[in-house]
Amino acid sequence: MTNSAIIGIGKTDVGEHWDTSLRHLAWYAIEAALDDAATTEIDAVFVANMLAGTLSHQDHLGALIADFAGLRGAESVTVEAADASGGAAMRQAVIAMESGLVQTALVVGVEKVTDESGSAVISAMNTGLDADYEAIHGQTLAGAAALLMRRYLHEYGLSVDDFAGFSVNAHANGALNPMAMFRNQIKANRFAAAPAVATPVTLFDMAPAGDGAAAVVITSRERAMDMVPQPVRVAGSALATDTIGLHDRRDLLWLDAAARSAQEALAQAGITPDEIDLFELHDSFTILAALSLEAAGFAPRGEGWKLARDGDIVRSGRIPISTMGGLKARGHALGATGVYQIVEVAQQLRGQAGDCQIPNARVGLAQNLGMTGATAVTHVLAI
Amino acid sequence: MTNSAIIGIGKTDVGEHWDTSLRHLAWYAIEAALDDAATTEIDAVFVANMLAGTLSHQDHLGALIADFAGLRGAESVTVEAADASGGAAMRQAVIAMESGLVQTALVVGVEKVTDESGSAVISAMNTGLDADYEAIHGQTLAGAAALLMRRYLHEYGLSVDDFAGFSVNAHANGALNPMAMFRNQIKANRFAAAPAVATPVTLFDMAPAGDGAAAVVITSRERAMDMVPQPVRVAGSALATDTIGLHDRRDLLWLDAAARSAQEALAQAGITPDEIDLFELHDSFTILAALSLEAAGFAPRGEGWKLARDGDIVRSGRIPISTMGGLKARGHALGATGVYQIVEVAQQLRGQAGDCQIPNARVGLAQNLGMTGATAVTHVLAI
Repeated sequence: MTNSAIIGIGKTDVGEHWDTSLRHLAWYAIEAALDDAATTEIDAVFVANMLAGTLSHQDHLGALIADFAGLRGAESVTVEAADASGGAAMRQAVIAMESGLVQTALVVGVEKVTDESGSAVISAMNTGLDADYEAIHGQTLAGAAALLMRRYLHEYGLSVDDFAGFSVNAHANGALNPMAMFRNQIKANRFAAAPAVATPVTLFDMAPAGDGAAAVVITSRERAMDMVPQPVRVAGSALATDTIGLHDRRDLLWLDAAARSAQEALAQAGITPDEIDLFELHDSFTILAALSLEAAGFAPRGEGWKLARDGDIVRSGRIPISTMGGLKARGHALGATGVYQIVEVAQQLRGQAGDCQIPNARVGLAQNLGMTGATAVTHVLAI
Repeated sequence: MTNSAIIGIGKTDVGEHWDTSLRHLAWYAIEAALDDAATTEIDAVFVANMLAGTLSHQDHLGALIADFAGLRGAESVTVEAADASGGAAMRQAVIAMESGLVQTALVVGVEKVTDESGSAVISAMNTGLDADYEAIHGQTLAGAAALLMRRYLHEYGLSVDDFAGFSVNAHANGALNPMAMFRNQIKANRFAAAPAVATPVTLFDMAPAGDGAAAVVITSRERAMDMVPQPVRVAGSALATDTIGLHDRRDLLWLDAAARSAQEALAQAGITPDEIDLFELHDSFTILAALSLEAAGFAPRGEGWKLARDGDIVRSGRIPISTMGGLKARGHALGATGVYQIVEVAQQLRGQAGDCQIPNARVGLAQNLGMTGATAVTHVLAI
């Protein structure tokens, strides 16, 4: 159990924010979170971002965003771990709370990608891969996911269609989330007809990159009780890494960092997977959803896909995932995604998830991956 | 007083490392630091870097460098705050130590810039400025420093030549440091003859960007006593921010973040500026050296330059600065510079600074700035 509790959450919708600057996007999420927490007393800011330096020619977001958010002078830095930046920034904030040096911290994830062409975005996202051993040879994130998925299909004798449930579930939930990027439901036959991106990965296996920002205010559990009616406790927090390159993994189909960070976070919280009411996992690809379910202990190896087939992952199922659309339908705001996950779990635990609500949710898990799991950050939230 | 102590230091020389990859450069510094600490048990890694995403197409350095350094799986993230990234990563490591969640942490700063053209590097460095209000209008870091320097000259009735002492001192010390980028001494008349870069800033007012890596291992003070003969205590640690854009500063000639972080770090250490034996300041420009001396309390406003004129900053002076060459002569490895400063102060306190040694140095100050002071990180080290 950590000493942190969430007292404020905020976010923008994920999509194409061509008329909103990077700093404004961050501010809209921060404003909502500060309003929600009813405080502006922030000691430290942790900004999560992956690509602003490359795509917006803007690094140094710590100072920039603190100033723009009316927090001029505050301690503020950027934390980067590819598309696990959001979870990593949340983790740094929890560490800072634990140190006792910070009373109240703001975590803000922001990403702006759609101003640039798709090829520029893919090239920029490739910086999260191993530049010398993967990207330079033409590997992309979708290509790396395709290698994982092909191996999984081979090992367990499956076909791509066996993954349809992940996408169908994400879209079904996203359709109910007014801030989701894609609000259309899809059926399994539509999934099956999707065009290939990197065989066997199709368009419906992968999440769309979008612009967005999400923010969380945390303080000590004791202070939180006095400040808001429904503080959300951070019961567990852990970050682990693995090799970036798939060629160096000891076991291609085991997300080691995801497993270790989940085990550590669950141990801190003193709970087991069957006590989790919902799991916001990193479904940037359906294969990662399957592997994440296995790594976190919700399914034996090779059987993560069955949870999608059997309906265990839907809102009324045994372990609901992507309850507000996940990366697939809410949209993948890269460096901000990990903060979206925290915000969404907090919404569920506070009973504020609208049509996406999981009844009586008390404990939620959020897991943010960098690329194919080279970084994994797991948080257990409870109310 | 924090609970952290430095038990290992390492670095590469700063310069043009065309034959060394980014990860190798980081590894050489890490290897030296781990050897020095005689441990490989690292719980968390904090990587400081500014431009690898832009110039080397490589983000996600946390996972990459942990793996390459034989620390596969360790908690590891990148911390970015422009050219204050090194100090900011050190600060995160100190926070992590204070949290009790981490027993031993590794801070590694790495930057590789000379593979690219000078104009590409300047363009990349501009990402530390305000993209929308400065860089897009043609502002550069040297241009911003020029605005500060021109105002300083105007306010106090000075000429560029009054800043010669900063450059002469840095080169005199760099000439004695075998790992410095520039090891030539210069005289005041050479300084006066230097070509203009952004009037009034000349080539000898500004530090050269170079490739380099530096690393520090820290653990708790208690453990440090058992592990190494000369642990260096982190007596104070603070980070503050200011506006990036100079147009938004309340007072153009007052480095507010530098002043506040210095005051806070000194207060933690329970000391005053006159108890400091050496000051590794951020002399990316001579004007920043003068303003840093004023902000940290070593000179009244408008009189920082006098410390250079009067010889107070030389190794035998009242407050030695840039004792191993500073950014000006050791070289400015951007995101790694803040870690170099920590390493150099530790060398001085351990009596291992070779020909650059300040006799009987007991307490040292390191201050790392982001751009013209939008981020400032100050550490007080003591033995």
